[in-house]
Order: sequence, then structure tokens, then C-alpha cells
Amino acid sequence: MYLGKVYVSYKPSVLDPQGTVIQNKLGQLGFADVDSVKQGKYFEIKLKADTKQDAATQLEELTQALLINPNTETYRYDLEEVSA
Amino acid sequence: MYLGKVYVSYKPSVLDPQGTVIQNKLGQLGFADVDSVKQGKYFEIKLKADTKQDAATQLEELTQALLINPNTETYRYDLEEVSA
Repeated sequence: MYLGKVYVSYKPSVLDPQGTVIQNKLGQLGFADVDSVKQGKYFEIKLKADTKQDAATQLEELTQALLINPNTETYRYDLEEVSA
Repeated sequence: MYLGKVYVSYKPSVLDPQGTVIQNKLGQLGFADVDSVKQGKYFEIKLKADTKQDAATQLEELTQALLINPNTETYRYDLEEVSA
């Protein structure tokens, strides 16, 4: 069994209105040292696979198939073997 | 300047309907080896601080003040020094 941790964020060229709203709110709350805020999605996915390479391939395929919008989002992931 | 990466997920005891919906959809798409899916939030926060400890304290305070619901969510973070 493998655990994939997928981090999805907007591509640098894409406006992140949610991040801007959060940054403004943090400023109002007194967190004046915040320079920028980006918000994205985070997934923890457990999957069965024979090898780590097989798990990585599955993780990339399912991420591109369902978890991201390839036009506006990019992703990275960590992958580790875990007990069932 | 420091870059904090904050990973927010539901506490284990909290139902994750979004994760269940994604898992079902992945099954329909043929990803039958997926054992579980959890969805959370991911933040990248750049902030000015004199020391790494000061940056960590700020990051924890602003996360608990605005980025998570302490009743249902938990978080972890990575923190690194970056050029401005």
C-alpha cells in the first residue's frame, strides 16, 4: 500500500483571488508581515500497487484525470509506502 | 523572507464527503486500486521575519486565526527561508 500526498496550486500566471482575499483579511487581523498568500488543494490518496513506480504512475494518471484543471493548475506529490 | 507551506486536512474523526465523492468517481474512471481519498487545503504563505522561530510563530498564529477550523481540521507545515 502506498500513500500519495498531492499538492495542487495555481500556475504562476493565473490570478488567485482567494489568496488575495485571505491576505487582505490577515492584514486586517494584524498580520502585517505577510507578503503573499496562495491557496490550493491537498489530497491524501492511499492506493494498492506492486511497486513504487506503479504507484507513481497511477497517482499521476488519476491526478491528471480528476484532481487538477491542467489549464490553470499545476501539482507536485510525495509518495511513500505505508502499512495497509 | 520565509515561505510557509501549510497542509490542512480533516481530523480523522470527521467525515470527508468530498473525499468519498472523489474516490467513487475515480472508481468509475477505472482507478480500482484506490483505497481512500482525503481532500484538504494547501497554502503557500510568504512572510517577513527576523528569525525562523519568529516566522514559525507567525505562521502558527495566522493559521489558527484564519486558515483552519480548529473543531474539524488539523494542519502541519513546512517552513524554509527564501530570497525576497
